[in-house]
Amino acid sequence: MTVHLAEPGVLAGPKVVALGGGHGLAASLSALRRMAGRLTAVVTVADDGGSSGRLRRELGVLPPGDLRMALAALCGDDEWGRTWARVLQHRFDSGGELHNHASGNLLIVALWDLLGGHVEGLDWVARLLGAQGRVLPMALVPMNIEALVGSSRRSPAGAREIRTVSGQHAVATVDGDVVAVSLSPPDPPACPEVIDAIGEADWVVMGPGSWFSSVIPHLLVPQLREALVTTSALRAVTLNLSPEGGETTNFTPEMHLEVLGAYAPELRIDVVIADSGSVPDEPLLRRVANEMGAELVVTDVAARDGSARHDSQLLGWAFARTLGRGRIGPWR
Amino acid sequence: MTVHLAEPGVLAGPKVVALGGGHGLAASLSALRRMAGRLTAVVTVADDGGSSGRLRRELGVLPPGDLRMALAALCGDDEWGRTWARVLQHRFDSGGELHNHASGNLLIVALWDLLGGHVEGLDWVARLLGAQGRVLPMALVPMNIEALVGSSRRSPAGAREIRTVSGQHAVATVDGDVVAVSLSPPDPPACPEVIDAIGEADWVVMGPGSWFSSVIPHLLVPQLREALVTTSALRAVTLNLSPEGGETTNFTPEMHLEVLGAYAPELRIDVVIADSGSVPDEPLLRRVANEMGAELVVTDVAARDGSARHDSQLLGWAFARTLGRGRIGPWR
Repeated sequence: MTVHLAEPGVLAGPKVVALGGGHGLAASLSALRRMAGRLTAVVTVADDGGSSGRLRRELGVLPPGDLRMALAALCGDDEWGRTWARVLQHRFDSGGELHNHASGNLLIVALWDLLGGHVEGLDWVARLLGAQGRVLPMALVPMNIEALVGSSRRSPAGAREIRTVSGQHAVATVDGDVVAVSLSPPDPPACPEVIDAIGEADWVVMGPGSWFSSVIPHLLVPQLREALVTTSALRAVTLNLSPEGGETTNFTPEMHLEVLGAYAPELRIDVVIADSGSVPDEPLLRRVANEMGAELVVTDVAARDGSARHDSQLLGWAFARTLGRGRIGPWR
Repeated sequence: MTVHLAEPGVLAGPKVVALGGGHGLAASLSALRRMAGRLTAVVTVADDGGSSGRLRRELGVLPPGDLRMALAALCGDDEWGRTWARVLQHRFDSGGELHNHASGNLLIVALWDLLGGHVEGLDWVARLLGAQGRVLPMALVPMNIEALVGSSRRSPAGAREIRTVSGQHAVATVDGDVVAVSLSPPDPPACPEVIDAIGEADWVVMGPGSWFSSVIPHLLVPQLREALVTTSALRAVTLNLSPEGGETTNFTPEMHLEVLGAYAPELRIDVVIADSGSVPDEPLLRRVANEMGAELVVTDVAARDGSARHDSQLLGWAFARTLGRGRIGPWR
C-alpha cells in the first residue's frame, strides 16, 4: 500500500505557505488545510526546551516538536489520520527517561536517523497521517535564538536595564520586553523545498504566534527572507489575539507590525488580519498597516470558547475573503 | 485513508497460529506469511532485557520487543511496509536516555498508553505495516521466567550443582543447562483473541527459538496450553538448527522434544521438522518423535548463508509439504 502526497499538477485551490511555530502555526494550518490546493508549513527549528530540547542535546538533531505539531494539525480527516495524530501528540508520563517525550518527536528523529534526509523523514510522517499538506523546517541546522530584553522595572535614575537572554524557551517565557532578537548561526542553510514553495506560492501567511521566537526568526534566515521578499504571492500577517505573557507582555498590535517592519523593511505586506476583540486603537493600527502598504482587516477570528486561540473556520473565512478576493480560479 | 486487516471471510489458505518469540518466531512467520489465509503470531511477553526490559520497568507495560519483531516480519511486501518495518526495528545510538531503544518499542507502548487495549494497539501497528497477519501477546500481563540450571561442572564428589536463575535474559544466556522452568504469575490472563485463533486454526506451529525462554513458556500459561491441547489443528514443531549457546548448550534435538513432552504430556504433535544438517542421530530422533505420535521430517531448511537461521522459503515448503499434504482446499 502506498500513499502519495497530492500531486502539484492537480490543484483545486491556491498554493499557500504558512510560516511559524507552535500553536499559532497550527491555527493557521487548521484554517487553511481545506482551502489550499497545496499547503506548505515552514516551521521554526530553534526550540531548546522540553522534549525537543532534550532530543536536540542527546542526538544533535533539529528540534522536532514544532514540526510534529504542524504535522498533527494537517492530519487526514478520518479515523486513520486522527488516530496517528493523537499518537504523535501523545506524551509519556513515567517519571523516568521517557517522561514528557512526545511519541511523534521520537518517531520523527527515528526517521531522520534511518533515512538521512530531514525532508524525506517529514514526508513519511505526512504520508502516515494522510496529511493535507507538507511540513518543512525553516533551516536545515538547529538554531539558537538570542534576545536583548528590557527589564519591566526602571532603575531609580529612570534607566531601563537591558540584558541578553539565550534560547527560544528562555526568550518565550522571559520577564520583560524583547528589544531585539538574533539567530545563530547567522546564515543557516535554508531548505531548498521551502524556497521553491515560497517562489511558487499564491499566498504566504505569517503569524499568529510568539512573535520573537516563532514569527520573526524566519526573517533572520537570509535565503528565506529573500524568498519572502521576492515572491509574487500575496502576503498576510495574522496578529495575535492578546499580548502573550513573557516576550511581548507590553506589546500593542501595532508594535507587532512595527517589529516585523523593522526586521524586514523591504518585505511588502498585503493584508493584516486582527480580531475585533483585540484591537484597542483601530485607527492607529490601520495607519501603521497602511504605512506598510497593507490593508487592515478587523473581524471576528477568535474562538468563542475563551481559549485565547483562533477559530479555524473563522480564520479560514478571513483568509478566503481577503486573499482570495476576486480570484474565481483556476489557480495557476 | 483507512487500511483494513484481511477479513476472516476471504481465505485462500489455511488458518495458522505460530507461537514463539524473537528471531525463531520471525523465521516461522517469514515462512508462513504468503501461504496462510490467516496468520496469527502468539508472542512471549517475558523479556526483561534491553529496551523491552527498560520499558517494562519504567512504564509497567508488556515487554514490546518480541511483538515488534514479529510485526516487522509480517510487514507488507512493498516500499511502504518495508520502510515502516525498518523504522520499527531502528535503534537509537546516542549514549543518552534513548540509547538502544528500538523505535517500534516506543511506538507500541505509546499506542498502548493512548488506546488502552494491548490488542488494539498491536492491530494499529499491523495496519501501519500493511501486515500479512496479526500479532498477539501470549498473556496480558508481563511475565517472569525462573529456571533451575545445572552447572556445566561437577563437584569433586560428582554431584551437579543446581541453582535458580530469574528473568528471561538471564535464562537465555545462562552458563549451564536449564533443568526446569516456571512462570510467574503462574496463571496469567491469556488473550481471548489468541484462544479463539488457536481454536479455529488449521495449523499450529511451535519453534524454532530459545527453547526454555521462547517456546516452552506458552505451555505454562494454563488457558493457552488448554487451547493448544484441544484444538483440532495439525501441530508442527520446528527444531533448532544447532544447540543454542546458553540455556540448551548440551541439548540434542531429541532432548528438545522430550522437554516439550515433559511440560505438556497431553499435547499431541503431528509433525516434527528438523534440518538435515542438525540431526546427529536420526533413528533416535525418529523414535522419540514417533513415541509422541509425530512424524519426523528431516529436510533442508537451513539458510545457506552460514547464518545459523532458517531459510524462509525452504521452511515454508516444508510446512506446505507436511501440514498441507492432501489438502487442496478450500480451507474451512
